[in-house]
Amino acid sequence: MNEYTERVRRLQEQLRHKRIDGCMITQNVDLYYFTGSMQTGYLFVPSAGEALFLVRRSVVRAQSESAVKAEPLGSFRSMGERLAGAYRSLFGEAASSGRKLRLAAEFDVLPVQQLQRLEAVLPAVEWVDGSMIIRELRMIKSAAELACIREAARVIDLAFEDAAQAIRPGITELELMSRIELFVRREGHLGMMRMRGYNQEVITGMVGAGDAAATPTYFDGPAGGLGLSAASPQSASRRPIQANEPILIDIGCCIDGYIIDQTRTAVIGSLTDDLVRAYEVSERIIRSVEARLLPGTVCEQLYMHSLQLAHDAGLSDHFMGYGDDQVKFLGHGIGLEIDELPVLAKGFSYPLQPGMVIAIEPKFTFPQRGVVGIENSYAITGNGYEKLTVTREGLIRL
Amino acid sequence: MNEYTERVRRLQEQLRHKRIDGCMITQNVDLYYFTGSMQTGYLFVPSAGEALFLVRRSVVRAQSESAVKAEPLGSFRSMGERLAGAYRSLFGEAASSGRKLRLAAEFDVLPVQQLQRLEAVLPAVEWVDGSMIIRELRMIKSAAELACIREAARVIDLAFEDAAQAIRPGITELELMSRIELFVRREGHLGMMRMRGYNQEVITGMVGAGDAAATPTYFDGPAGGLGLSAASPQSASRRPIQANEPILIDIGCCIDGYIIDQTRTAVIGSLTDDLVRAYEVSERIIRSVEARLLPGTVCEQLYMHSLQLAHDAGLSDHFMGYGDDQVKFLGHGIGLEIDELPVLAKGFSYPLQPGMVIAIEPKFTFPQRGVVGIENSYAITGNGYEKLTVTREGLIRL
Repeated sequence: MNEYTERVRRLQEQLRHKRIDGCMITQNVDLYYFTGSMQTGYLFVPSAGEALFLVRRSVVRAQSESAVKAEPLGSFRSMGERLAGAYRSLFGEAASSGRKLRLAAEFDVLPVQQLQRLEAVLPAVEWVDGSMIIRELRMIKSAAELACIREAARVIDLAFEDAAQAIRPGITELELMSRIELFVRREGHLGMMRMRGYNQEVITGMVGAGDAAATPTYFDGPAGGLGLSAASPQSASRRPIQANEPILIDIGCCIDGYIIDQTRTAVIGSLTDDLVRAYEVSERIIRSVEARLLPGTVCEQLYMHSLQLAHDAGLSDHFMGYGDDQVKFLGHGIGLEIDELPVLAKGFSYPLQPGMVIAIEPKFTFPQRGVVGIENSYAITGNGYEKLTVTREGLIRL
Repeated sequence: MNEYTERVRRLQEQLRHKRIDGCMITQNVDLYYFTGSMQTGYLFVPSAGEALFLVRRSVVRAQSESAVKAEPLGSFRSMGERLAGAYRSLFGEAASSGRKLRLAAEFDVLPVQQLQRLEAVLPAVEWVDGSMIIRELRMIKSAAELACIREAARVIDLAFEDAAQAIRPGITELELMSRIELFVRREGHLGMMRMRGYNQEVITGMVGAGDAAATPTYFDGPAGGLGLSAASPQSASRRPIQANEPILIDIGCCIDGYIIDQTRTAVIGSLTDDLVRAYEVSERIIRSVEARLLPGTVCEQLYMHSLQLAHDAGLSDHFMGYGDDQVKFLGHGIGLEIDELPVLAKGFSYPLQPGMVIAIEPKFTFPQRGVVGIENSYAITGNGYEKLTVTREGLIRL
């Protein structure tokens, strides 16, 4: 059984467990996860039996890539009859018992118009939200997925070292970011990091120095950055980097679909004692969290633990953003998207499991002065963790 | 009255015309269009009276950017009461007459979960699709918007000339694309071009040569490209560019939020006569379409006209993709997103109007051999058009 078939099988297991008759997958990343192809169309996964990928475009390409049987969609309007014909027992059983089929779709990303189109061609269906089922399956990475993330980690490390030797007073955040992007792009970076959240965008992370880094933004992370304009209000700006201010280098890349995410703090010259100390607290937090990265540890507890350590250091107000602009998490799953499960935050009761991959990013924001912190990505193993990030740690003095 | 206030006023005019009581705007690009800020939150536009931007994050940044009154969202759960309090006559009139308020949202991009959250806090509302209202308003650009697009056109022209002098046998599509991306990024490119369509992604366009360019993809354009892997199945690949094959350079950038889109065809050495002729037909089509770019011309007619010209040249099978992978349009609106209205396609009965900005891209695909064509972006004026693209035309021999 190949990897994709196994993923479909696990999805079916969950569908049956939740008494859902099938799942209609349409989002590009989820399509890739279950079929190996990112061509557009409708992947129908019945709760039992063979899945069918009805491809809108490109059929020929999907047929060469997909591990799931791929056929031309043809007329969208006849998709209901098509599926009823292909899954006679499933559709027939529901029809004869007078109940609606319960089908799941990705309500977290599926636009309302797309659901309405599905409702029109499959009228005897009760649509339910299947996004958590899919996200929870994707939360546990296979050996092949881990290998992809290690490769991305290797590339971002080289990009970081290349960038570090280019930092000098006067280089703008944008120039530095451009250099990093050129480096990772030539190594096969997609050009951006896919993100599931509504309205969220991330290209290659952010490079921010001093007050620019500490500028709050909509972006769902502890450090957003000034950005280029109100139309691009995050990440690198045209501000020149100066001596004796913290330079936050929070970067990642997406190689062959898989994302790495890491942060280092650098300085030309030196930082004041309080910023150095805050950086040291971020390392202390990550070391203490590492010691708890074991199967069974509950995600929420890691967040609460980090809050306690920040509090003990007298830095609660600065932790993960400042004041009203704080974010309420310590880390997030990564994989095909940068905002995967699990989240290290309140309300996330998942126990850690082997195969989870989590970016952990304790950071401290000082308004008008900058952001310091560290971020590594980790894979949970049978007895602890593998640190995927390979870049040197410590406050990097240039 | 400033530009944003005027946009809100025009939206309100449309809401009243369609007997809709208000509009709840949440998508980042639409928020920017109506407020000048891309911070996250809920922009409520009543059919009459003052709009209110309830900001989730960052409030301080939204308040410094937004032309619309911006206040902290606070608790999402109390948003219903909050709006009922702020818009007493609107909500009260509906309640006292026993009818539901009709509110519009962007059903083309709004995820189902987001609509469900709105339904939960505003239960006495009938939600309707407002996406066409917003897209039609955004279709007509202001002088300030046109100035942004002209700036993007200036930058992409410089990037093109920089790339053209770097093309030599053996350079890979990815290396060439990376060089273009570095150039535009340093000039302020966002890092990608925003796209409204579900599952659609575009970074900086595509560079494709020979058979790689002719590889079909899911991407909703005439030439997709081979891409880097099944997880990145479009645009540039690692294939080296060779002599005597068509090199399609379909690139754009996003400067201060606004997009330009253009295509040129180049060759190292020479092309066979049939490809040269197909390129010439693409120029003939664009010249003939230009002659019809006048207020009042119906969009659909321009597409039908191009089909006829491709047919007359005996190139119907190759026009806008090949065979099953053809796309059914000649051009598309551009602005804050790359897939705006109008579309030059069947079913688009919009007459051209001053302020429309359209990328027109006649292209011919030859399987295993490559893609040739041209693309310019145009603004419709009072008596014709302004060609926004400034890059030299003709088959570019390197």
